[in-house]
Amino acid sequence: MKNKFFALLLITSFLLGSTTVSAQMIKTPAPPRPAGQKDVLSLATAPIPTVRVAFIGLGMRGPGAVNRMTHIPGVEVVALCDVLEKNTKSANEILTKQGKPKALEFYGDTSVWRKVTALPNVDLIYIATDWLSHAKIGVQAMKDGKHVAIEVPSAMTMDEIWALINTSEQTRKHCMQLENCVYDFFELTSLNMAQQGLFGEVIHGEGAYIHGLQPYWDQYWNNWRMDFNEKHRGDVYPTHGIGPVCQVMNIHRGDKMNFLVSVDTKAIGNPAFIKEKTGREVKDFRNGDHTMTMIRTENGKSIQIQHNVTSPRPYSRMYQLTGTKGFANKYPVEGFALDKSEISAEVAANHEKLTAHSFVPDDVRKALMEKYKHPIAKGIEEQAKQVGGHGGMDFIMDYRLIYCLQKGLPLDMDVYDLAEWCCLIPLTEISLDKGSVSVEIPDFTRGGWNKIKGLKFAE
Amino acid sequence: MKNKFFALLLITSFLLGSTTVSAQMIKTPAPPRPAGQKDVLSLATAPIPTVRVAFIGLGMRGPGAVNRMTHIPGVEVVALCDVLEKNTKSANEILTKQGKPKALEFYGDTSVWRKVTALPNVDLIYIATDWLSHAKIGVQAMKDGKHVAIEVPSAMTMDEIWALINTSEQTRKHCMQLENCVYDFFELTSLNMAQQGLFGEVIHGEGAYIHGLQPYWDQYWNNWRMDFNEKHRGDVYPTHGIGPVCQVMNIHRGDKMNFLVSVDTKAIGNPAFIKEKTGREVKDFRNGDHTMTMIRTENGKSIQIQHNVTSPRPYSRMYQLTGTKGFANKYPVEGFALDKSEISAEVAANHEKLTAHSFVPDDVRKALMEKYKHPIAKGIEEQAKQVGGHGGMDFIMDYRLIYCLQKGLPLDMDVYDLAEWCCLIPLTEISLDKGSVSVEIPDFTRGGWNKIKGLKFAE
Ligand SMILES: NC(=O)c1ccc[n+]([C@@H]2O[C@H](COP(=O)([O-])OP(=O)(O)OC[C@H]3O[C@@H](n4cnc5c(N)ncnc54)[C@H](O)[C@@H]3O)[C@@H](O)[C@H]2O)c1
Ligand SMILES: NC(=O)c1ccc[n+]([C@@H]2O[C@H](COP(=O)([O-])OP(=O)(O)OC[C@H]3O[C@@H](n4cnc5c(N)ncnc54)[C@H](O)[C@@H]3O)[C@@H](O)[C@H]2O)c1
Repeated sequence: MKNKFFALLLITSFLLGSTTVSAQMIKTPAPPRPAGQKDVLSLATAPIPTVRVAFIGLGMRGPGAVNRMTHIPGVEVVALCDVLEKNTKSANEILTKQGKPKALEFYGDTSVWRKVTALPNVDLIYIATDWLSHAKIGVQAMKDGKHVAIEVPSAMTMDEIWALINTSEQTRKHCMQLENCVYDFFELTSLNMAQQGLFGEVIHGEGAYIHGLQPYWDQYWNNWRMDFNEKHRGDVYPTHGIGPVCQVMNIHRGDKMNFLVSVDTKAIGNPAFIKEKTGREVKDFRNGDHTMTMIRTENGKSIQIQHNVTSPRPYSRMYQLTGTKGFANKYPVEGFALDKSEISAEVAANHEKLTAHSFVPDDVRKALMEKYKHPIAKGIEEQAKQVGGHGGMDFIMDYRLIYCLQKGLPLDMDVYDLAEWCCLIPLTEISLDKGSVSVEIPDFTRGGWNKIKGLKFAE
Repeated sequence: MKNKFFALLLITSFLLGSTTVSAQMIKTPAPPRPAGQKDVLSLATAPIPTVRVAFIGLGMRGPGAVNRMTHIPGVEVVALCDVLEKNTKSANEILTKQGKPKALEFYGDTSVWRKVTALPNVDLIYIATDWLSHAKIGVQAMKDGKHVAIEVPSAMTMDEIWALINTSEQTRKHCMQLENCVYDFFELTSLNMAQQGLFGEVIHGEGAYIHGLQPYWDQYWNNWRMDFNEKHRGDVYPTHGIGPVCQVMNIHRGDKMNFLVSVDTKAIGNPAFIKEKTGREVKDFRNGDHTMTMIRTENGKSIQIQHNVTSPRPYSRMYQLTGTKGFANKYPVEGFALDKSEISAEVAANHEKLTAHSFVPDDVRKALMEKYKHPIAKGIEEQAKQVGGHGGMDFIMDYRLIYCLQKGLPLDMDVYDLAEWCCLIPLTEISLDKGSVSVEIPDFTRGGWNKIKGLKFAE
């Protein structure tokens, strides 16, 4: 019997492994939705005329958000929390400087944040801690009756992602990822152009996080960021790249991502950096210098995402859209190419040699940027640029979050966006560890991806 | 028994297909090398002071090569062949116009080329026919005792690739792919910079063929190019993109490509074009508008290649190198970024704010382009630009081919380069048809990939 078993095993292995049988995609099935729980697609909650915000995590990123909130009418910053006393106190000085009342101060150990999520009279918890604490705090905040906005990436594992989804669905609280890059001007304008049909059907999109972090590595609390890269292979910071592309492609608003597959390089830059700074020899540094991920959607479109935080390269989020009638490209220079039919007669007359296979000239590009400026950027562009935060996009993000909460409108990004953009972290790791196999991307809406047709920011 | 068999089959399938067992890569083993046959690495043949060339295929591409050859000393164009009489005749007029003796003329049916490969007193057969006839003519030419140079891509299937390799190994004749893009000025300079160590270890490279072919579709003989795209999914034109990257990465000169995996989009642009031009509805057009391929090498490097011949996008071969100390990027604007240590003190002093994370300023870029001009471009750059052919690179290619044959030196590109660059065509098709699985790239040198250390053009 034993022999027969092994013979059969061999035959079956051969059949399954041979070139004529397709290899299995790694499955990542969605856990069934608990009974009585509904999706939070287009979730709208009661208007909150004055939004009371509590901040958790006030390192390099948090204080800027505190400052931005002081410039938005109808916001009260009521609590500030960081494990480090000096971070909490100096964030409170921002409020004083802006002529606002001081907020409650919390600092101490790594569970001090529980006092903050438990506070009464708080509407929104704004989380800018390290990656590993995001989801845990977010889940508890919703359980404690608060809306929650979480820095990128908001979740690092499939369990964390499903916990955020289930908690948002159970509590009916907003859970938004603070993905600011979808609000950058070129991205917003391109999204608008895409929605107006200027690019035809957008069939391919690209995005990336290519940013040498050498000046920052030693400033992260407890070395959390390098540590994560040391322990994890994959695209560990995908949301800036994939967010804007998913919005253009209407992911879970008529399309869905079906699978991904990744290829990376060996790790050289980061372990060399550690060796140089600390003398420590890291033999098994997990994350490669450069990671590429390809994705295919249900509607037959493709996406490419890259991650590289160590190579000597100019900053780039790539951001590129290929449509059947046009093309947008952000780095290293912003440009559009458009089918002749999409260019006005007047412009065409002025640029006789213009074809779909050249970038439109500078004057046409500028005119397009003006004409297709996204409605949500229009009124606040000037103020956004003045207040700042990556040139203004951070302000537009915070402004929109508060605006929608105040009016009781659905937020621009929901917990399924968060899930889709963050799931690349665990799923690219699986793909790479198994030798670049394709890995299923589950439908985080559990059946609702085709209910809403097209992304629309609430007005 | 039958029941038991199926139970076991089920268990085994489950074990092999479950998330804990890695999916199998598609294997593409090299056929064993026939006895008595040796590799053609660094193949050098007896010097040929006057190279007698016969051309087969004189459509859009061939005549330019005939013209270029008239500008190279020590070349005699002795025969011209095309199925179409007018093509053969008008190519002969190029010779007359350049004051050269007329060549023998061949035209007629699709096997008229056999008379040409059989000619005595011919040293080199230069093939610029459609893709499907390349390998067949190339194999016969070598069997008939001629060296052979074949336009891109030189082979479309694994069988054709192995036939060219085996024939070259058996006959000891050169079989070079006419991959001109490795000779473009930015690519040659970047290769030289890479070889001088300016980019550190190049760990990632990109290349592409992104070129809207709408103006050309109806000019290909017998509609061969659109037909191939209609019948085949995959990167059907990979060599311009992958050639220059493989050279920098020393593929089969110390490294080798281990596997590839592809993702494509649905097909919209090409079937729409056919519909518009001919009214024919193509329901099952195979090739997607946009195809991406990722590759990983034995030494832990990655390559990305794209193909798109239909979208309204500016021409791009992408060409990008990411190294541990520097970066080169060709499209849409040529640029370099370099680690400070790689920038001379003088330059650094003049550009205080220059970091590894910005492109070097224009004056530095120009100085680098001058300082690192590739030796093989130095003497002939001016003439190449004058004679033309994609701005000069075509002339450098032909010049190098003739130069090496005249001196009895190894050619810049051997049959294994041809194999590695062309194998993407059949292997990406397999990957896509099986749902984006990874596919092994065989070692075409059959054990010799690590014998030669580093690419070196013979002098
Ligand atoms: N969207 C963007 O453009 C952008 C830019 C920078 C950073 N970020 C994100 O913001 C987050 C924070 O990044 P950073 O650069 O500020 O890192 P940081 O290390 O400077 O800040 C993290 C802060 O969180 C505090 N903290 C850690 N654990 C805590 C806990 N349990 N309770 C309370 N406070 C705790 C630390 O003391 C520290 O001050 C990260 O998710 C990062 O990816 C986003
Ligand atoms: N390296 C480059 O930059 C570059 C540029 C253009 C084309 N190409 C390549 O050159 C080749 C030819 O392309 P093209 O644009 O000239 O195509 P084409 O259709 O214009 O030319 C092909 C020619 O081959 C002839 N032909 C076909 N079968 C023949 C046979 N059996 N015997 C003799 N002649 C035959 C046809 O009559 C035609 O004149 C292709 O492989 C293409 O990919 C390369």
